[in-house]
Amino acid sequence: MSDAGNDVERRIGELRTQIDDVDCRIVELLNERAELALAIRELKPRVQRALYDPRREEEIFTHVASCNKGPLYADNLREIYEKILHVMKEL
Amino acid sequence: MSDAGNDVERRIGELRTQIDDVDCRIVELLNERAELALAIRELKPRVQRALYDPRREEEIFTHVASCNKGPLYADNLREIYEKILHVMKEL
Repeated sequence: MSDAGNDVERRIGELRTQIDDVDCRIVELLNERAELALAIRELKPRVQRALYDPRREEEIFTHVASCNKGPLYADNLREIYEKILHVMKEL
Repeated sequence: MSDAGNDVERRIGELRTQIDDVDCRIVELLNERAELALAIRELKPRVQRALYDPRREEEIFTHVASCNKGPLYADNLREIYEKILHVMKEL
């Protein structure tokens, strides 16, 4: 491969290492979120609250969109968050 | 509502505020990840690399599982990451 090609391959490698680092931080936060969600689930029966609350889900989508600065679109985040909330519910 | 009930409601409110805070940090990292993925996508044609690389996807699932400390299971994270990677590809 040409020198320029090697440079590009090296740059791709560096960017992937950065992605791996970001992914571990995302995993940590997803686990933190799961712990908080589990704590809420434990409390809910004590105040006769339903475990599933569609209004709270909409609140989460709105909140997530409100702190978004891109390049992802609100719709992209909603798609990802629908999955996150689904997984948290099944825990 | 009883005092005990009010305490529980207040506690649920506090936990939800903490979740909102975690969500904004997740959104920030998802955007950081998207920027890195877009930078890689721009470089790939210069080294005749396919945009979609199933081996790299498996590497990501393995890496994500390796930094997981729970309470989420590796399968939960895989489910969430399949969605994240799908969204990043469509960007």
